[in-house]
Amino acid sequence: MTGKSIHEISVGDVASFEKTITEADVYMYAGVTGDLNPVHINAVHAEGSVFKERIAHGMLSAGLISAVLGLQLPGPGTIYMSQSLKFTAPVRIGDTVRAEVEVIEKIEEKNRIKLKTVCLNQSGEAVLSGEAMVMPPKAK
Amino acid sequence: MTGKSIHEISVGDVASFEKTITEADVYMYAGVTGDLNPVHINAVHAEGSVFKERIAHGMLSAGLISAVLGLQLPGPGTIYMSQSLKFTAPVRIGDTVRAEVEVIEKIEEKNRIKLKTVCLNQSGEAVLSGEAMVMPPKAK
Amino acid sequence: MTGKSIHEISVGDVASFEKTITEADVYMYAGVTGDLNPVHINAVHAEGSVFKERIAHGMLSAGLISAVLGLQLPGPGTIYMSQSLKFTAPVRIGDTVRAEVEVIEKIEEKNRIKLKTVCLNQSGEAVLSGEAMVMPPKAK
Amino acid sequence: MTGKSIHEISVGDVASFEKTITEADVYMYAGVTGDLNPVHINAVHAEGSVFKERIAHGMLSAGLISAVLGLQLPGPGTIYMSQSLKFTAPVRIGDTVRAEVEVIEKIEEKNRIKLKTVCLNQSGEAVLSGEAMVMPPKAK
Repeated sequence: MTGKSIHEISVGDVASFEKTITEADVYMYAGVTGDLNPVHINAVHAEGSVFKERIAHGMLSAGLISAVLGLQLPGPGTIYMSQSLKFTAPVRIGDTVRAEVEVIEKIEEKNRIKLKTVCLNQSGEAVLSGEAMVMPPKAK
Repeated sequence: MTGKSIHEISVGDVASFEKTITEADVYMYAGVTGDLNPVHINAVHAEGSVFKERIAHGMLSAGLISAVLGLQLPGPGTIYMSQSLKFTAPVRIGDTVRAEVEVIEKIEEKNRIKLKTVCLNQSGEAVLSGEAMVMPPKAK
Repeated sequence: MTGKSIHEISVGDVASFEKTITEADVYMYAGVTGDLNPVHINAVHAEGSVFKERIAHGMLSAGLISAVLGLQLPGPGTIYMSQSLKFTAPVRIGDTVRAEVEVIEKIEEKNRIKLKTVCLNQSGEAVLSGEAMVMPPKAK
Repeated sequence: MTGKSIHEISVGDVASFEKTITEADVYMYAGVTGDLNPVHINAVHAEGSVFKERIAHGMLSAGLISAVLGLQLPGPGTIYMSQSLKFTAPVRIGDTVRAEVEVIEKIEEKNRIKLKTVCLNQSGEAVLSGEAMVMPPKAK
């Protein structure tokens, strides 16, 4: 249950996780984070918004990126240092979001990996993009 | 249910939201995001980690920042454009996390607000810091 | 709050519980068990599967059998010893599943009851079948 | 996102998944399945039971087996045919349950795999044991 050390990782390595975001996800997420913004949990209000319907929290999709980093690349034992996020399109309830990460730089002397991180919807449109910096687990 | 327009916002304005992060929060968040990293949901594994116990997902705390931006400052109608995040300390189950945002710049011609965003634990230690860029709702 | 003892139970006794399985049920179940199989939580992937849409976890329906045994026949105080399960048809999101149990054997000297257990969908099609062995609560 | 075909699987192959079972898990599972047996959700009642405290649903642990079969061995695309379960010890709230599966037979002409399935607690005690029969995904 330990992920890849920096020596087992190469620039260009990729990993992904994909999930359909449901109404239940949005409501549980709202409860957990306290983000009860009406655009997420009030259908009447959301109809009058620029989105015309309830949308998922942008930060919920960011959680899928964390899932890929922590479970796959580098995997368990990774220390998450930083993340930049640009929210580029709304995620609607029922959209299928694919989080993709790609290693773009290795900083071996500091045991750090920089990754390009993006979330796409089922049409291939980017809903979220940015970069992550992580420390992979030490080699055993 | 509409937040503050840029003319109602001043540099230096602050808002915050505080919540104790429970085991149930961490488990629901894991299910919603698919982030089943053992450091979050496996007490035996987590004992052997650098944290010595299960910790909350860093991105869960980021959700509290989104809650402040979307509910208080600027509030409903805000478009979340981008967020940078540095994870500076772990959040342990039972910690009380306070998300604070402070307006640091107004870009009136583009209707954008830049905010300093930080999450602190009950000891006042920063667990997360960064900056957010948002578009406040238009004046009615 | 104590169920029936073996002397209050006869071969042929039946009990049932019925519930519509929602998308929220499937997603919460996925989070609780860690079973993030894409056929359950990824609509795009599931379209390409033999089922053509997301389906509920088979073991979720098995939980309805446990509910009947533990709440009705024999009821609270029952010790669940064993269960066999054949998954005979998929449960689709929105299907109404009826778990039925029927006592088929009493083994009085060991205080054990054998039951036929089946889950049916709203069309009467068996989605799950098998047998349970339980120890009813002792007579007070 | 497709698991191993029968030709990529050998007798003796193993896989596992481990998770700490929390009070929140037990309560969400109770809600999803309708199994509101007081031994799971009523601390006062459970104190007077043979277990002396609330315990997790046995069938919840069975869900971890399904997670291993559907995500790892054979993985996505697997058809779950049958499962036998012996409940051999209670799972207490806070126990860490490890589901292990091991391939014990290949029936190539029918594209079926038989696996030994067991759930152990953090002390290595079996809480659940049995066998699963599955159809691995076809080779692409």
